[in-house]
Amino acid sequence: MQHKAIFFDIDDSLYDSTRQSSYARSHAIEAMIDAGLDVDKQVIAETLAHVIRKHGSNYGLHYNVLLEALGRPADPHLIAAAVVAYHNVKLVYLQPFEETIPSLLTLRDRGYRLGIITNGLAVKQWEKLIRLGLQHFFHSVTISEEVGCEKPDAAIFDQACQQLGVTPEVSAFVGNDPRKDIAGANRAGMTSIRVLKGKYRDKTPANEDEIADFRITGLGDLIDLCDAGKLQ
Amino acid sequence: MQHKAIFFDIDDSLYDSTRQSSYARSHAIEAMIDAGLDVDKQVIAETLAHVIRKHGSNYGLHYNVLLEALGRPADPHLIAAAVVAYHNVKLVYLQPFEETIPSLLTLRDRGYRLGIITNGLAVKQWEKLIRLGLQHFFHSVTISEEVGCEKPDAAIFDQACQQLGVTPEVSAFVGNDPRKDIAGANRAGMTSIRVLKGKYRDKTPANEDEIADFRITGLGDLIDLCDAGKLQ
Repeated sequence: MQHKAIFFDIDDSLYDSTRQSSYARSHAIEAMIDAGLDVDKQVIAETLAHVIRKHGSNYGLHYNVLLEALGRPADPHLIAAAVVAYHNVKLVYLQPFEETIPSLLTLRDRGYRLGIITNGLAVKQWEKLIRLGLQHFFHSVTISEEVGCEKPDAAIFDQACQQLGVTPEVSAFVGNDPRKDIAGANRAGMTSIRVLKGKYRDKTPANEDEIADFRITGLGDLIDLCDAGKLQ
Repeated sequence: MQHKAIFFDIDDSLYDSTRQSSYARSHAIEAMIDAGLDVDKQVIAETLAHVIRKHGSNYGLHYNVLLEALGRPADPHLIAAAVVAYHNVKLVYLQPFEETIPSLLTLRDRGYRLGIITNGLAVKQWEKLIRLGLQHFFHSVTISEEVGCEKPDAAIFDQACQQLGVTPEVSAFVGNDPRKDIAGANRAGMTSIRVLKGKYRDKTPANEDEIADFRITGLGDLIDLCDAGKLQ
């Protein structure tokens, strides 16, 4: 079956979101210590990780809850120090993998329609695309907040295909998370391509659904898949 | 004649270099005043403009010469204040025109080969392409420092065509400067396209050579030229 469209996850698929979060959090913690928080760095790091797991990455009061969990008052100076440090580092690492743009250009040169399917807040995900310089590359951008369903729900993949005017059978999806990306794309009837990046790089598929049709180490390998006739 | 390649100038063609320089210089001057230079802003601005015209934009000691011209000592504090302010503002405005990336993507979608022909220092021009997020879009990048000749010399246009494996007859050049860009491209036998941006926007051609085959108000108009069969 001739493939017409390739859809992409953003975080850890188009850029190194794991490295970005790790460095930004580490810098935020050091900034709080510099600003006077006398708690062991490792203890802060573990507590913060727990707070983020519990409240999600889009929660707005991570550092307030962190200080509370550490038994400290919600000192605005400490919280602001963390926010500034996190933000500064975050922006520096918000850049595409070296292979991202060349691969997207080559895929467009070959006539593929390109799309985004991502979970998150619409403005926040668009902000990432703009800061990555990728806002003009995709023929469609489908964000969970806007469509009311999220990966791994097959419905978001179906919606994205409709938006682009293609069927799942002639579409591939590239993502790094076996559960949200690969299982979702498989259940939607798309060709699933797992990119081995970020925190799930070494994760074993938990079930049959999470096994990708293809595994690649970076987006450059997509071109090899095309050349080998796998996405024809 | 079927066009195969489109070459581009960088400054004021792919991004608003005039706005960038203007804001960055203005901020540098204000930073020097804030740091203690008690000279009228307008006087500093005119003197600096003179220094830049005299020594060129790639000279490394603009602010030293500026202070000398103002009859002041070369105070490192003032010079550093200017350099930091200039650099900070410069980076903020180093972004493509809104039409740049969509137009380049569409031209690639239609099968054109794309190239850069620019005057300047090789590292500096590459730094611009990288910061603009455009480093992967072009099949060739020809920089005057590397080829030993510069626009409007027809030789640099010929070299660029050779590098891309095309002839001038099937190539177009897009630039904003009637003298360097348009006259040069015309003499090289390329289709010349003048983009009405930046400091030369309202400049009248000084002679026949400086008259472009086409005039456009932004890169988006290139697609209209294609649609109208002008670059077929």
